[in-house]
Order: sequence, then C-alpha cells, then structure tokens
Amino acid sequence: MSDFIASKEDDYSKWYLDIVQKAKLADYSPVKGCMVIMPYGYSIWSKIQSILDKKFKETGHENAYFPMLIPYGFLEKEKDHIDGFSPEFAIIKDAGGESLVEPLVLRPTSETIIWNMYSKWIKSYRDLPLKINQWANVIRWEKRTRPFLRTTEFLWQEGHTAHATEEEALEETLLILDVYKRFMEDYLAIPVFCGKKSENEKFAGAVSTYSVEALMQDKKALQAATSHYLGLNFAKAFDVKFQDKDGKMKHVFASSWGVSTRLIGALIMVHSDEKGLILPPRIAPVEIIVIPIFKKEDEINKKILDYSDCVVHTLKKAEFRVEIDKDVRSSPGFRFSSAEFKGIPIRIEVGINDILLNSVTIIRRDKDRKFKYQISLDSLVSKVRVELDSMQKDLFKKALNFRTLNTKEIFRSGKDSYELFKAYVNDYSGFVLSCWCGGLNCENIIKNETKATIRCIPDDFKARDLTGMTCIYCSSKAKYYVLFAKSY
Amino acid sequence: MSDFIASKEDDYSKWYLDIVQKAKLADYSPVKGCMVIMPYGYSIWSKIQSILDKKFKETGHENAYFPMLIPYGFLEKEKDHIDGFSPEFAIIKDAGGESLVEPLVLRPTSETIIWNMYSKWIKSYRDLPLKINQWANVIRWEKRTRPFLRTTEFLWQEGHTAHATEEEALEETLLILDVYKRFMEDYLAIPVFCGKKSENEKFAGAVSTYSVEALMQDKKALQAATSHYLGLNFAKAFDVKFQDKDGKMKHVFASSWGVSTRLIGALIMVHSDEKGLILPPRIAPVEIIVIPIFKKEDEINKKILDYSDCVVHTLKKAEFRVEIDKDVRSSPGFRFSSAEFKGIPIRIEVGINDILLNSVTIIRRDKDRKFKYQISLDSLVSKVRVELDSMQKDLFKKALNFRTLNTKEIFRSGKDSYELFKAYVNDYSGFVLSCWCGGLNCENIIKNETKATIRCIPDDFKARDLTGMTCIYCSSKAKYYVLFAKSY
Repeated sequence: MSDFIASKEDDYSKWYLDIVQKAKLADYSPVKGCMVIMPYGYSIWSKIQSILDKKFKETGHENAYFPMLIPYGFLEKEKDHIDGFSPEFAIIKDAGGESLVEPLVLRPTSETIIWNMYSKWIKSYRDLPLKINQWANVIRWEKRTRPFLRTTEFLWQEGHTAHATEEEALEETLLILDVYKRFMEDYLAIPVFCGKKSENEKFAGAVSTYSVEALMQDKKALQAATSHYLGLNFAKAFDVKFQDKDGKMKHVFASSWGVSTRLIGALIMVHSDEKGLILPPRIAPVEIIVIPIFKKEDEINKKILDYSDCVVHTLKKAEFRVEIDKDVRSSPGFRFSSAEFKGIPIRIEVGINDILLNSVTIIRRDKDRKFKYQISLDSLVSKVRVELDSMQKDLFKKALNFRTLNTKEIFRSGKDSYELFKAYVNDYSGFVLSCWCGGLNCENIIKNETKATIRCIPDDFKARDLTGMTCIYCSSKAKYYVLFAKSY
Repeated sequence: MSDFIASKEDDYSKWYLDIVQKAKLADYSPVKGCMVIMPYGYSIWSKIQSILDKKFKETGHENAYFPMLIPYGFLEKEKDHIDGFSPEFAIIKDAGGESLVEPLVLRPTSETIIWNMYSKWIKSYRDLPLKINQWANVIRWEKRTRPFLRTTEFLWQEGHTAHATEEEALEETLLILDVYKRFMEDYLAIPVFCGKKSENEKFAGAVSTYSVEALMQDKKALQAATSHYLGLNFAKAFDVKFQDKDGKMKHVFASSWGVSTRLIGALIMVHSDEKGLILPPRIAPVEIIVIPIFKKEDEINKKILDYSDCVVHTLKKAEFRVEIDKDVRSSPGFRFSSAEFKGIPIRIEVGINDILLNSVTIIRRDKDRKFKYQISLDSLVSKVRVELDSMQKDLFKKALNFRTLNTKEIFRSGKDSYELFKAYVNDYSGFVLSCWCGGLNCENIIKNETKATIRCIPDDFKARDLTGMTCIYCSSKAKYYVLFAKSY
C-alpha cells in the first residue's frame, strides 16, 4: 500500500481506486464484483439516506420492505423487463436442502414483486395514489465492476408509485427527478443536466425514462439517478385495476425511481484531488477535524489537549459534526494527510502558538495548505459556519465551471460537421450538445463510431428553437437537442 | 377480511395474525415464508433502528456493509457454524447466465464474510478493538414460518467485534446484552430475563451465548436478542492475528450479537388486546391521533377542522409525533377502530362540544373507552406528556405483573417433584425456575417430555445459594438455577 495517490492525469482509474482505498470508503471482497462498504463510506451513504428519506417523506412517500427473492415467472410477465435484466440474474434453485419448484431470482429491481402486491392492495380510487419507497440491496451480475460505480450487489432506494391517471404518474416522475436534481446540486454540489432518455437508453419496462447526468473530472458522464414513467406496463402485467369514481374498472399508472451507492462514486470523481477525497460540507459525515499539534513536553501537551477539547466542545454545542484526532503516536503530518484522504471540509490545528494567541488555525480541504490562517476563539463558530457555507458554494461553482468548459455545442453546418463532432468527442470528450433526428440508426452509428451515447434530451435546452436545425449525423430535420457523452 | 380480531383465548395464533393484518404491519408475499413489511410495520422497525443505532454509536460502534453472498467454502471453515446453519442455506449456483465455480450462500449471518475481511484489516494491537455493526437482510430457509416471528428473509442488525483479550470480548458481549435489556424494558416496555444459554442452545460457532428472554401472553417465551462470545473460533478459522504490544502474534477474540424484525412480533404479543395492537409510546411511530367528529353542517365541520388542525399544530410544536385522520367519508367509529388496530397510544377526539368548552377529549389506547375525559386546551401539552409517560410505565408494569404471575419456582424436594414440574409446564406453561445438574441428558429428556427448553441461566438468580439444591430431573447436585419455558 503506497502512501500516495496516483495522479489524475497519469492514471485516472488508479487515482479513483486509490481514493476509495485511502479514504477507507470500500474494500474488495472475496466475492467477485462485490465490495465491502467500510465504516467511513457507509457513513456517507447514511447521510445520503437521511437527507433523501426526509425529502421522500415530505413529498408524501412511505417506506416499506419487499422480499428480495422474486419468482422467475414474475420477471417474465413484462417482456422488455425480462429481456433487459435476465442476463444479469443470480438464480436460486436450491434452498433448505431441496430443489425449488420454481427458481427464484435475487431482485435486480423490484417492480414485479411490488406490482404483484399492489394487485392485492389497490381496489378503489381511494387506495390511490400509493407512494412507497424501499431502501434495499439489489444484485445485478455485471461483467466489469468498479467500487461504487458498478458492483454486483449495491445498496439503493427504489420508489414505486401507483396513480389513477397518466398526468399524476408523469407529474410524480418529474417531481422526483427534481428532488434528485436539487439533492445533487444543493447537497452533493454536483451540477446536473436533467432530461428524457432516448427510446434506446430507457429502462427495460418503462414508457419513458428521465435521468440526472453529471460530468466527472475525466470528462465522462455519469448517470446519477433515474426516474421512470411506467405507464400501464406493470399494471397490465400484474392485472392491477381500481374502481374509479365513475364506477369503472381501470388500470393503474405507475412510476419508479432510484439512486444508489453509485452517488458516492460521483462524489469522488467530481470533487476530489490528489490529496484524496473532497466532501461538500452538507454531505460530510464529519465537517471539522481538530488536530492538536503536540510538543515533547507532557505538561504543554496537556494544555494543548485541554484547549483542543474545549474547541471541540464549542463546535459540538453549535451542532457541527466535529471530531478530534489526538493520536499522539502519529505525527501531525500523518494526521493531516489522513484527514485529507477523508475529505473532511475543515481542519482546525491547535498548537502552542494558538493557545498563546487564544486562537486556532483553520484550513479548508479545498484550498492549498498555504491558505491556512488563525482565527480568534471568539469568532470560531461564526467563522467556521461561513467557511463551510462558502466551501459548499465554491465546490458547486468549480464543478459548474468545469462542466461549462467541457460542454461544447456542435451543430451540423456542412458535410464535415459530423467529422468535427467525432474528432471532438475523441480528443476532448465532455458533453456535446447537438441535434438529432430521433432515428435509432443515427443514434447507433454515433455510439459505435464515437463511444458517445445520448445521455438525455436536456430540459435546459428545451426552449431553444429547432427551426432549420438538422441531425448531426444524417442531416435530416432535427427533432431534439440532445447531449452526447461517453459515460460510466 | 373480517372486521374483528379473533379472541386470544379462542385462537391465539389467529389473534396474532389478525393484528398483523388489521394494523397493516405485514402481508404475505408470493414467496413462501417471506413477508412484505408494510409501511406501518416498517415505521416501527425504523423507530427500533434509530434508537438502537444511537445506542450502538454511543458505545463506540460503527456501521458498515458486507456482501450478502458468501462463498460456500467460507461457511465450512467453522465446523459448528456450518453444521448449525447449512440446513437453512439458500444457494446460488447460476448467475450472469453461467454456472459459478463455487456456489454462493445467501448470508444466514455474517461471521464468516466479516472475519475474512478482518484478516485483512487487523494487523496490530492498534487496530483493536474493531467494533462494527451492520443493518441487513438475511435468509434462513425455515420450514414453519410466521410473520415477524420466523420468516425466510428477515431484517436485522448484526454486530461483530474484535478484541485483543478474552476479558474485553466478554465485556463487550455483556455490555451489548445490557443495551438490549434496557432497550426492551425502557422502550418496548417488555420485562426480560437475561442470562447464559446452555451448551445445547448456544449459537453455532459460539463459545457461549447470552440471550434476552421475554414472556408472551400465551405464556410462551420468546428469545428477543442474543449476544455471543465467540472466543477464538472465527479468528482461528480465518487466521486473524495481531501483533500485540509485546511483539507477539496473537489470535483475536470475538463477539457477535443481533436483534431482528422479530422484536415487532414480541411487541404484538406482549401488549396487544382484542381491539388490536398496543404500542408503548416511546416506540410508537405515531404517539397521538387527532380525530375530528364531523356533523352534517359544512359550516360546523369547517370549525371542527380548523380547531383540530390547531390542536395538531400545538402538539407538533411540542415535538410530539402526531397525525390527524380527517377522512370525512369514514364514520368516527371506523376511524377510532382504525387507530385502535394500529395501537396509537393516545386518541384525541374533537367534537363541537369540545370547541364550546375550549377543550379536547382524550383517551389512552390501553384503557377502556369509558375512561375518556375532557381536558382544556391550556393543559393539552402537559397532560398529553403525563399520559404518554404513565402509559409507558403502566404497560411495563402490566407486563411485569403478568410475568411475575407466570414465573413459578419448582425445585426438587422428592420423587414426585419432576412429575409436578411436568404437569405444571403442561397445564400452565410460563417460566419455571428450577435447578439443573448441567447434564445434556437431563436437558434433552425434559425437552422431549415437556417441550420446555432451558431458556437461560438467569442473571437475576445468580446470587441464590445452590447449597443442597438438586437437579429437577436426576436429583444429582445442581449446578445452576435455570429458567425453563416453551418457546417460539
């Protein structure tokens, strides 16, 4: 285990894995493709959970828990669904010392088992809307895995809602998309594009899929969240009908939506540097680390420790999430690095000089060490609050700036436009805003030739005029502005 | 679906299942032995989680997440462990469209996968103690299942700790036993006996198991929590050694401990009656339900509703967990019953008469309807607080009283003592405190002849003198006071 983190430029992939390891976020497990989420990584996930859970509840959702074992036959009931997911099934045929009559699949997603239950629970318009969320583990047998970004087992939340009308179900789909967008931007400090997926890229079983797309530092896009409008697909597959106010029996409209531990991968890749993770304060399990700088004399050290404890106490009283690293066996430098690996937003150093001046030394994780400065104890709480707030904003601004620099508009203006597009995607990557005729053929050719896919039909550019615009590939009339990018 | 709950006396088992259904705690799923935890049931589990999680953190534990798939070979490494659990394995041999080289088992418990990781993480005395908890689902293929009490898949927490010395590991085992006991008594209002299990009843892989035993209303015992001292069993199986301060390499001592959704089964069976669930206030997701009693006139109803909203607002401001049921389509009686099914501790009724007197009508779930009374709005908050506190205490007292009445001491005093013991267990059930020689033979004969097992060697009676006491079965010298009971 090296003490250094690889350079982003030299080896982006190793840089990512080094941070996962150095920040003690996750470890490889002996089961192929499965990771162990270590305590620090799990504490970030808990923070994500508690914030989102609150937002789901505020928007009228309740939590429940459905079995993780799904009868194979259920998954076959929705044709696109089984086609999309069956290659990744993990299947149980033996249990309790016997062969099962029907094989069971470890849930890759729970639409089928949940809509089977909804067929029992939904009888009348009075039972609608039904808005349930589940925090759970899921299993998808992926070929190529990477901690947080793509693992065989991962943790997520999946919302499954049932509605009397198409309008309501669509409204829910977009409401949640907005919850995700605001969570990404306001808490994770990650700017995102939201929009509809192309037919080709939508969820297996959905009428339409909306996604939240973020740009990583290697200029590849990452789909951070999805919200699906499922129409009547699952209601029909599981015969879920309700008696409406007019007395008629009608099928139920559906949405489903989710985010996973993948968000931690996004957090790493958007903000971090070569000293380790950088966490936006609002999502950081620990906002402030206090590090006493010990001397050789026990008597002085006792003073330093008492003073440090007092600093911690003051910050705790002001409801900051604060920890102290008073491991005398480790040098200050070692403890600084360890706090940097973990991306703790603010480090407070307490040395003998600080005590003499009735102050502490403060340094933000996103700033160079030379920007550390002393503040008097009197202004500790207010100053820390200001720094945390501005760090949150600065990280977002920095990420937005990076995305703006790496979002290029390339439209068809002549025969060589597509060649330009291809060259740009190859050389620079990033998001490319372009126009598309809506044809599957063009989408596939572009994907094959550039490895870039349509990430979404972005809401941000919906208002733009399409008059005279043509498809970047085939030059026929454009139907949409779309964002292309290589992606995770 | 009947509107009534079966009588406890007539059909205890149906009474239990009726409450599960009427309170909307859980529903049967299409997968044999697996239940769906419905939103209300899940909200109780969330409450249990948040309280225990806080206690675990206060006692120095961190959460993490380990893979749910365990290589079969891992489970074989500890002989007792595989012998105990293998009959209940659910096994995956096919995944991602291929046959696996080594079968994977869905975790029945995670000692093996966790100690495999500990062998990577623990190198030095500096890495100890390591105290990790996991909230997760587990799968045990049970033959006979019942919602919450015994299901194929259940939710639980499992703590796994590693220590440098036997003393520390034992101390941890008992510390957690005490955390469980206090949680059961202070929050769930369930009096419990704590103590060591007999060799025969201990966890497969443990050196010794300690359990928390509660008495249900049918006078059967329920093991509500266990804490295991694992000695070096898993450290040896997975070769986990640390370099101690003296430079020597030593094996690591272990504990593991857990509680599950079974606790909800205990809650139902200890407190509930034939009107439904009764929840102790400290664990109730909703402490107070406000029910406006509507009249025929819209104008009056508007007043009633405004007044009710104001009551809710006042209670929310005082940080009570309060809900309002203002469904005009349902009669007050229907809404009363529905709140009773759910065991909401306090019901507040708001009728026109209450408005005139500037008061509300209040009734506790554990008291007969005739005990409802009016209180003035001025004293609302203080009165509600007093009622919730005393209800919490009353439920505990009632349960303790029931247990005291149903804990009988039967010691060997002559040839017919064992016959008396047998007859008593058969006719009355409950806990029987008796003496035991410590022999497996006696334990097995008693179990076969009475269906009662040794629940534990209870701490409460540890101080009692054993001089002259003899085994209830064989009359040889007694080694322990033990509690016998039929159990779930």
